[in-house]
Amino acid sequence: MSGLSAILEARERVQETSRHTPLEYSHTYSSLTGADVHLKLENFQRTGSFKVRGATNRIATLSAAEKEAGVVTASAGNHAQGVALAATRIGVDSTIVMPENAPISKVKATRSYGAEVVLSGVDYSEAAERAHEIERAEKRTYVHAFDDEYVIAGQGTIGLEILDDLPEVDTVVVPIGGGGLIGGVATAIKESRPETRVIGVEAEGASSVATSLEKGEVVPIEAVDTMADGIATRSVGERNFALIEEYVDEVVTVPDPEIAMAVVYLLERSKTLVEGAGAVPLAALLFERFAFEEGERIVPILSGGNIDLNMLTTVIMRGLVETGRYLKVRTVLKDRPGALEDLLGIISSHRANIYAIQHDRTSRDIGMSDTEVELDLETRGHDHVDELIAAMEDHGYAVEVLV
Amino acid sequence: MSGLSAILEARERVQETSRHTPLEYSHTYSSLTGADVHLKLENFQRTGSFKVRGATNRIATLSAAEKEAGVVTASAGNHAQGVALAATRIGVDSTIVMPENAPISKVKATRSYGAEVVLSGVDYSEAAERAHEIERAEKRTYVHAFDDEYVIAGQGTIGLEILDDLPEVDTVVVPIGGGGLIGGVATAIKESRPETRVIGVEAEGASSVATSLEKGEVVPIEAVDTMADGIATRSVGERNFALIEEYVDEVVTVPDPEIAMAVVYLLERSKTLVEGAGAVPLAALLFERFAFEEGERIVPILSGGNIDLNMLTTVIMRGLVETGRYLKVRTVLKDRPGALEDLLGIISSHRANIYAIQHDRTSRDIGMSDTEVELDLETRGHDHVDELIAAMEDHGYAVEVLV
Repeated sequence: MSGLSAILEARERVQETSRHTPLEYSHTYSSLTGADVHLKLENFQRTGSFKVRGATNRIATLSAAEKEAGVVTASAGNHAQGVALAATRIGVDSTIVMPENAPISKVKATRSYGAEVVLSGVDYSEAAERAHEIERAEKRTYVHAFDDEYVIAGQGTIGLEILDDLPEVDTVVVPIGGGGLIGGVATAIKESRPETRVIGVEAEGASSVATSLEKGEVVPIEAVDTMADGIATRSVGERNFALIEEYVDEVVTVPDPEIAMAVVYLLERSKTLVEGAGAVPLAALLFERFAFEEGERIVPILSGGNIDLNMLTTVIMRGLVETGRYLKVRTVLKDRPGALEDLLGIISSHRANIYAIQHDRTSRDIGMSDTEVELDLETRGHDHVDELIAAMEDHGYAVEVLV
Repeated sequence: MSGLSAILEARERVQETSRHTPLEYSHTYSSLTGADVHLKLENFQRTGSFKVRGATNRIATLSAAEKEAGVVTASAGNHAQGVALAATRIGVDSTIVMPENAPISKVKATRSYGAEVVLSGVDYSEAAERAHEIERAEKRTYVHAFDDEYVIAGQGTIGLEILDDLPEVDTVVVPIGGGGLIGGVATAIKESRPETRVIGVEAEGASSVATSLEKGEVVPIEAVDTMADGIATRSVGERNFALIEEYVDEVVTVPDPEIAMAVVYLLERSKTLVEGAGAVPLAALLFERFAFEEGERIVPILSGGNIDLNMLTTVIMRGLVETGRYLKVRTVLKDRPGALEDLLGIISSHRANIYAIQHDRTSRDIGMSDTEVELDLETRGHDHVDELIAAMEDHGYAVEVLV
């Protein structure tokens, strides 16, 4: 059966569990880029990401005996929730192994969808080992997160929905982690409408595909380092790589600061919460990591919104710093009356806002009569930051930029 | 002309500028409350809040001469952006006075909609004084944020949309600041379908209406203190109060911690950004500040999403603390090898996650041989917090809870 037929069949099964998230035209990003931008908001999907699609198609196609025996998988993230909900909706028992340090919010969410959660191992690979032990001991089916034809076909249903909603789409932009999403979407798009471009986006700190494409085989990278934890994988799967080679027009990478900025844009301008992995397609568009034309109909797939709220506050700060809207500096005041007032006068005359001031007279690195002061400032952009620092230095302050 | 006819006429004018945001059924809040909950997401409205509706109706109904002379207003928030976009779309010149310390992001947004922004005054009332000077000097029309019949009628279009989308709605829950929104919505609902309840919600730190209703006249409060800056007003307007007296069934208040929790719920569960003022109706529903029945069709109006991102990080932390999911404690370690390891052993045996650890050997309040340590912990709820603190204390640690 060709890839497209598998995806068309998957659609019937997936409809029970997942939500057809309609495309959302975005004036904001259209006016910023000159393209005609429509967002595919899979952060509004059930369980907060697209993963429930693939999991549903995998579990729905098990034999009656396999369904009876239940499923098992290992995941610290969206796949866990997708499998849990899909299994429960289909009436199959599920066990999910999560690393012991998994965010409590994700553990609770996975349990709330009806899975039994086993906390085991210090990282994903130890958790996966345990999941395979359970697979053997309890004869459960292991649901792979991406290297599985049914999972890939389930994710491909997103491609069909995009073509239904915007038949003349020029370009679809897709995150790459393990390659389940892009494998399915690229198949759906290219076997239906080959003239539509499919562009894959990796996080710079987890980019195995560019090298793999050069070598013509999957080449895992040594270590991953990105805030986009949903796509922080050492390599794509074998099936997934084959589909990328066959169907994907271009693979690009985006660095973490651009990912953070895209998350901040989506919050501020679109009032919507997208996780790092989900924001990479928009980051690639906003920072022109691929070429496009005026008026081109572009669909970034924003794949999920399950970002831990503590992580989110870090990402927001990072995004504000990167756009020159937040500045944290340390300087030293002579400990005399009016010293702080003088400094604040410089800042207000340059129209920066003060979020917070911290004094510290006990710091060991400065003279006894001096006071160290840290300032958190709201600024208007990089030029404003430069102007402000120059002004403080002109008045004799030694300014240390902290973030 | 009756209130409803004014609102029906407003609808024609408002359609040009504002977006009919469709009701969104929410399984999450339905299962949490037992009610049948549909969200009115005005945070997805143009300019990020409902204010553009009232501003459009006010500006569209000016005479040709008044339009030619332009409009002016004072606002630190959503009204500024609403007036700016409405004026630009209708082709009218607008000047917006904002206090000098207004968040830079809001100043930029207001400029981006085409207004001339004047920064003047240390607070809203000084800004308003300046705006009235401009009104007189330049013969501009002052667009009041809420105490204006056209503004009220414009906001009332939300009530019509709710009735269109969910004709059998039982209860509509509306934030109260100056009363423009609830005045219009209550008129639309009660003159169309009197059996639908209209419930108003104030922030506890800005609740003038309960007292005013008792006295039968507008009684301003002395000072406001709430994170919900969009409704941080000392009193409602005169016209608004009359409509509340006539049409609103019940007015309740919610405290800031509940508002913060509602903002966090909306982010985590619904992946949508709502500001404090916009979240008060959901807070009132989740914390049962009014009575409702199983299966009751309830529409909280989430009025806007323009929350400053720095404020948002504070609100998120507050929400996590209030729900027992974040704990910051300080304690003192004997300065001997393995002391920190012992403490961490207690924490990990209770399955709390550690976000951050800060050591400080130089603190002045403790013995020379001791070390102060601060821990930021992820916890599973209030019971878990209590259990963890008890465990540390059982092992001889003096625990000071910082947040």
